[in-house]
Amino acid sequence: MIETPCLVDQYCHGTLRTELGLGTFEAHLARSEGPPAPGTTFFDTQTGFAVRRWCPPLLGLEPHCPPARYLARRREVGVLEAGRMLLRGSGITTYLVDTGLPGDLTGPGEMASTGAAEAHEIIRLELLAEQVADTSGTVESFLTNLAESVHGAAVNAVAFTSVAGVRHGLALAPEPPGPGEVRGAAGRWLADRKVGGTLTDPVLLRHLLWIAVASGLPLQLHAGLGEPGPRIDSADPVLLTDFARATAGLGTDLVLLHGYPYHRHAAHLAAVFPHVYADLGAELVRTGARAAAVLAEVLELAPFGKLLFSSGAHGLPELHVVGARLFREALSRVLGTWVAESSWSLADAQRVAGLIAAGNARRVYGLEQSAQR
Amino acid sequence: MIETPCLVDQYCHGTLRTELGLGTFEAHLARSEGPPAPGTTFFDTQTGFAVRRWCPPLLGLEPHCPPARYLARRREVGVLEAGRMLLRGSGITTYLVDTGLPGDLTGPGEMASTGAAEAHEIIRLELLAEQVADTSGTVESFLTNLAESVHGAAVNAVAFTSVAGVRHGLALAPEPPGPGEVRGAAGRWLADRKVGGTLTDPVLLRHLLWIAVASGLPLQLHAGLGEPGPRIDSADPVLLTDFARATAGLGTDLVLLHGYPYHRHAAHLAAVFPHVYADLGAELVRTGARAAAVLAEVLELAPFGKLLFSSGAHGLPELHVVGARLFREALSRVLGTWVAESSWSLADAQRVAGLIAAGNARRVYGLEQSAQR
Amino acid sequence: MIETPCLVDQYCHGTLRTELGLGTFEAHLARSEGPPAPGTTFFDTQTGFAVRRWCPPLLGLEPHCPPARYLARRREVGVLEAGRMLLRGSGITTYLVDTGLPGDLTGPGEMASTGAAEAHEIIRLELLAEQVADTSGTVESFLTNLAESVHGAAVNAVAFTSVAGVRHGLALAPEPPGPGEVRGAAGRWLADRKVGGTLTDPVLLRHLLWIAVASGLPLQLHAGLGEPGPRIDSADPVLLTDFARATAGLGTDLVLLHGYPYHRHAAHLAAVFPHVYADLGAELVRTGARAAAVLAEVLELAPFGKLLFSSGAHGLPELHVVGARLFREALSRVLGTWVAESSWSLADAQRVAGLIAAGNARRVYGLEQSAQR
Repeated sequence: MIETPCLVDQYCHGTLRTELGLGTFEAHLARSEGPPAPGTTFFDTQTGFAVRRWCPPLLGLEPHCPPARYLARRREVGVLEAGRMLLRGSGITTYLVDTGLPGDLTGPGEMASTGAAEAHEIIRLELLAEQVADTSGTVESFLTNLAESVHGAAVNAVAFTSVAGVRHGLALAPEPPGPGEVRGAAGRWLADRKVGGTLTDPVLLRHLLWIAVASGLPLQLHAGLGEPGPRIDSADPVLLTDFARATAGLGTDLVLLHGYPYHRHAAHLAAVFPHVYADLGAELVRTGARAAAVLAEVLELAPFGKLLFSSGAHGLPELHVVGARLFREALSRVLGTWVAESSWSLADAQRVAGLIAAGNARRVYGLEQSAQR
Repeated sequence: MIETPCLVDQYCHGTLRTELGLGTFEAHLARSEGPPAPGTTFFDTQTGFAVRRWCPPLLGLEPHCPPARYLARRREVGVLEAGRMLLRGSGITTYLVDTGLPGDLTGPGEMASTGAAEAHEIIRLELLAEQVADTSGTVESFLTNLAESVHGAAVNAVAFTSVAGVRHGLALAPEPPGPGEVRGAAGRWLADRKVGGTLTDPVLLRHLLWIAVASGLPLQLHAGLGEPGPRIDSADPVLLTDFARATAGLGTDLVLLHGYPYHRHAAHLAAVFPHVYADLGAELVRTGARAAAVLAEVLELAPFGKLLFSSGAHGLPELHVVGARLFREALSRVLGTWVAESSWSLADAQRVAGLIAAGNARRVYGLEQSAQR
Repeated sequence: MIETPCLVDQYCHGTLRTELGLGTFEAHLARSEGPPAPGTTFFDTQTGFAVRRWCPPLLGLEPHCPPARYLARRREVGVLEAGRMLLRGSGITTYLVDTGLPGDLTGPGEMASTGAAEAHEIIRLELLAEQVADTSGTVESFLTNLAESVHGAAVNAVAFTSVAGVRHGLALAPEPPGPGEVRGAAGRWLADRKVGGTLTDPVLLRHLLWIAVASGLPLQLHAGLGEPGPRIDSADPVLLTDFARATAGLGTDLVLLHGYPYHRHAAHLAAVFPHVYADLGAELVRTGARAAAVLAEVLELAPFGKLLFSSGAHGLPELHVVGARLFREALSRVLGTWVAESSWSLADAQRVAGLIAAGNARRVYGLEQSAQR
């Protein structure tokens, strides 16, 4: 029917190199501010059920086997070999890897070799700024080094990503901050800061966004579901409307990550602004059996050339598997239904499936070019 | 099964009288702040696919034929004859036409004759005010002429419509502005204004709404999806709650146009306030293959006597066709499923279908009466 | 297939003891600020259609019979016997009854005997405070009596409920108010108050919430759809994020009632905070034929051990019936589909169904214990 032989995971992280027990594995299935409630488990979530559906068969077990049995088998196989079996079974052919999260995670090179796939790096702006701050003595050197670092990173990376929405909320002033404002904010931040201190200052977050925009590389913005910290409506992508307007026509694409539960807002922005794209990431992995329904909601307003698959996976190769399998099944079901209802032609459905699975990402990130490097 | 032989399009615009090339046609398929992104086309949207599904057969082509082939056929037939074939094939029996948009668009009379249907006029309040301002010398004459114009327009029109939500956002103070406030705002606006200048002053926008309310004619308020300019949440119909409360019991009905992606909010207001109605317009045309799903969401809270069909079409008769066909198919599918599941009786489903397609609009706009004039 | 032999209705009210005419019955089918619009009826709503589907057969009539026929039969049977037939036909095995609404409503004891079920009381905090105010002479005695009343009520009740969200909106300061602040607010409220006057002061509403939190009993918070008064977005459960964070780890569970149309936000909070739960109540009764679709949306993010069935019924035993029947059918359809698609295993589906129908409520409210008292 509707197949997607190529699959570009346009936003994910690496996988953990350490063996995991039941508890540490379970902790990666949810984004919670605490442990599971008494009498409950994170396995009893759409993500948990999706992992139990798709992953056991890749390790030679029956689907939906109990978590303890799956974890035992995973340890028996070993974390490296399990990672190989899972990633190679995911169907993902290219990984774009955000290397900005802490932990003993595999990088793009290892993702590529383990997964028998291509891989490219996405640079997290806030981490870059923190690293520059760790090594810069003065405000002037910090700001100079920051600009150089961003532009230097742009040479090898395929995209920048910003968690300004998670750190401060997306209700940031849309225009670039003035030089004096930036210098003042940098001075205050550096003065208070200990090595490794995180960047949450809104002026510096905006400054970073605008340096990234100037680089011309696509800029991925976290919106909607993300870290549990802030009130979720502070990450409503609709708050990016004025930033989108301010960056229109500059030649840099914006990619709204995640979006859910505001995915219709993200799709709307992708429809209104030529340089704005919407991602399907975390919302599929988090909603599991509902992935097709959520995908269909995104497909209401988002132009078909403006939508990008990702897994948003972090830590567990199981999440890359689940992201890819849920996406493929959801896409095939949704588009297949529309073909069956005569709403779409089969040829159109196949073409659009190819765009969302890989074609749009290749075009936005210039991947064919980079493959030839 | 569930049929709707009468179809009142309770909100649409006229169609363009000029021949269209591929690019100008395509531009009418989206509401974007720019051209399609490089490598993409507005034909690759739900609206584009819906046009390609429903319209080619009306011009003697196979469904889903390529856009260039459809446009070639359209030019071969000629814009007037194509308009006739399309409008007559839409199944719409009455058009309520907002005549307040610029461009070489057909008016209600021409819509009626081209479409072999009835047609009535909807007056756009802001345009009326701008026209009055063009010909009034003083604040006093402007305000007097404005009141007279609104009341005069109410004689022949079936409704007023306001784009205050698009011009300023729906977070307007709910009560009528005081006379001094209105005079001050009018003075400032007229002093700064050049001929043709648009009305965006919130005091005057509210003043207009209240003159319209006093006329007793139904008042249609743009909400949700509309022009791309403002942040979409500034057009959330929930912002009209206090205005709805302020106008309750005055005898004037409010019709919330579009609504999507806040259509559940619009349905809620239609449930809470006896004089508030919800429209199905743009959301069906914009979401295409998802029209049944969106319609079903509106049918969660909206009382069945408070929901009105429209196409929201503008410029292309293809959009009237798509609005009508998507609506009929969606309604038949949604209600038919509920009948098949025994949730609804068939008799109820047929009766409700008739209400949403035409009966509610006839009652709200007094259409039987006007047909007898 | 997927059955739920036990059903704990974790939030409802009693039923009216008086015979009802067509008009008074109809008035209970909607939450409106006025009578039905001219030419419409509240029977033409999802709730009305659901009542006509499920209730006539319990009184010996065919489903979907006309409202007048159903009401005639109901009067023929008599209000007490009809209540018995309806409640016993609902399938509900335990009622948790909020006794804080005015009117001649049955209490938990009568619900238990009429429905051949268990029943427990939920205490409405604001009513309790009003009753204490009616009998307290000074600010000091009011505050002392209030604390004693809440702690006394906690002995026999299974939960507290608060309508702070309906009275003032959920955008309350998250921390407990200071003692001086509380004393000042109490003084002002008591000075202005006549006997029976309602509590809307935000400081006292917060004070009440925090006394309740200290009791350790689960605290149910109204959110989303409720009384028609306030703007619905003032009851968006996302506004409770900071209160949830402030009460984390204190050992008291929060249950977000209703939620719709913000049920995805409620589900998100239930996923993020170990002590937060989400309710399915009013949204199923209000959306009728769409109950399965709405339930499925809640099941996207809500962990399966964090979701609780309720009917939210008030006044009419028909609403308890409809709540229970819609829930069972929706749950069976949604989970059954996922099993059919191989997304879930049948064993998991049956287990999760049991949790949402009864198991989660038993655990949260300690119902097995209380049954043994």
